[in-house]
Amino acid sequence: MQTTKAEQKNTTACIIIIGNEILSGRTQDKNIGWLATQLNEIGVKLAEVRIIPDVHETIIATVDECRKKFSYIFTTGGIGPTHDDITSECIARVFGVAVSRDAQAEAILTNHYGAENLNPARLKMAEIPVGSRLILNPVSAAPGFIIENVYVMAGVPSIMQAMFAGLKGELKGSAKTLSKTISLYVTEGLLAEGLTAVQNKFKDVEIGSYPFIRHTRLGTSLVCRSVDAARLEECYDALKEFLLTLTSEITETDLAA
Amino acid sequence: MQTTKAEQKNTTACIIIIGNEILSGRTQDKNIGWLATQLNEIGVKLAEVRIIPDVHETIIATVDECRKKFSYIFTTGGIGPTHDDITSECIARVFGVAVSRDAQAEAILTNHYGAENLNPARLKMAEIPVGSRLILNPVSAAPGFIIENVYVMAGVPSIMQAMFAGLKGELKGSAKTLSKTISLYVTEGLLAEGLTAVQNKFKDVEIGSYPFIRHTRLGTSLVCRSVDAARLEECYDALKEFLLTLTSEITETDLAA
Repeated sequence: MQTTKAEQKNTTACIIIIGNEILSGRTQDKNIGWLATQLNEIGVKLAEVRIIPDVHETIIATVDECRKKFSYIFTTGGIGPTHDDITSECIARVFGVAVSRDAQAEAILTNHYGAENLNPARLKMAEIPVGSRLILNPVSAAPGFIIENVYVMAGVPSIMQAMFAGLKGELKGSAKTLSKTISLYVTEGLLAEGLTAVQNKFKDVEIGSYPFIRHTRLGTSLVCRSVDAARLEECYDALKEFLLTLTSEITETDLAA
Repeated sequence: MQTTKAEQKNTTACIIIIGNEILSGRTQDKNIGWLATQLNEIGVKLAEVRIIPDVHETIIATVDECRKKFSYIFTTGGIGPTHDDITSECIARVFGVAVSRDAQAEAILTNHYGAENLNPARLKMAEIPVGSRLILNPVSAAPGFIIENVYVMAGVPSIMQAMFAGLKGELKGSAKTLSKTISLYVTEGLLAEGLTAVQNKFKDVEIGSYPFIRHTRLGTSLVCRSVDAARLEECYDALKEFLLTLTSEITETDLAA
């Protein structure tokens, strides 16, 4: 663990989805949104996502670039027993270490499959980069692993989620980003100017503007985000005061979501 | 258009999703899977996806890096009228050109909103990088634009899809990747070794292996992909022959999808 980086005030994460099946359109990704929500809950800011193919050079270059830029890297996919599962060997190359049979992982697989069914393909799932710690897999046994600030998880959503649940407690977030939302049936173009004025008064609060169509009516949801609860309230109140000059029909529901 | 690059044998694309709302988990992305399928249909291989925040430096650096690596770049998000819509100015910076009021875009917006409602915020949507061509928006008028190999589209899925439908015809794909799928109730660990043997015989066909759980039964879907229809059939037949040594219960349906 690079604790120095992870303990910085602004703890960031990058998700790297490894999988041709997402890029081909065959499989709809379900991991990004789930992980984004989980990370935000513990004060880790998801700063970037990359979806890359099952290609050695691409995996190695991407992980190596991103691990230096962000506090935490979470990869999903490519740790199964088949020929297209190449994540472990690529991560080892990133850190300049060998891949070796991990005794704890082998014990887990032996217990799960029975020694008589532990063929070479399944044993491959016990081969992880030297110096890694395991991420336990309560769903289907084969573990993920952690090396420095890189967390290597399965691609199947139910397995990834179970893995993440087990390691969430050890992740060190910084201040959690709080948010308040306000929606109204006024289009972005009519509120943009006043919105800019509010944003300029509250530069430490991020205001996102999201158009929506609801029951044939057009409108905008505005989301204020800040780590400072008091500033968030102040900004929200100023925003609401401005918006009430445009319409009285305002809701705290996020209609654009 | 960098026709030389786009007309290469292997035409590639990169999608860049620009939006804090995806990274915060607030909004579930719906653009990646849709675009991936569309691109594959016309023989453009989606090679990478990036999801990045609404931050000037990140947008500029990402677009500049990716436009040099891939045939086509498709961005979504950040072209509306509010303060957080910064995509156009960032793309202009990438190409070292100014942003200027586009006459055709202004005419479109005037026609849509009426001259009396065309305030400065809405007019901002007519400001695009010098040298761009417009991407028409039949849903809500405000256009996207194309500069060299970068296609800048809206983030709202219905608008993005309408924009893409209009420009799909001008994209030059290479050979379309064909695929055939086979599923069976045998887990990956039990078929991995024989699968590797088939893959090694057909190095020009990519075989992806995807585990699934269906009605409490575990199994694997295998997807063969190639631009060569004859080789695809040969590989599929060899794969099926091997799989029939493991079970007779085989289906051509993709049970892992």
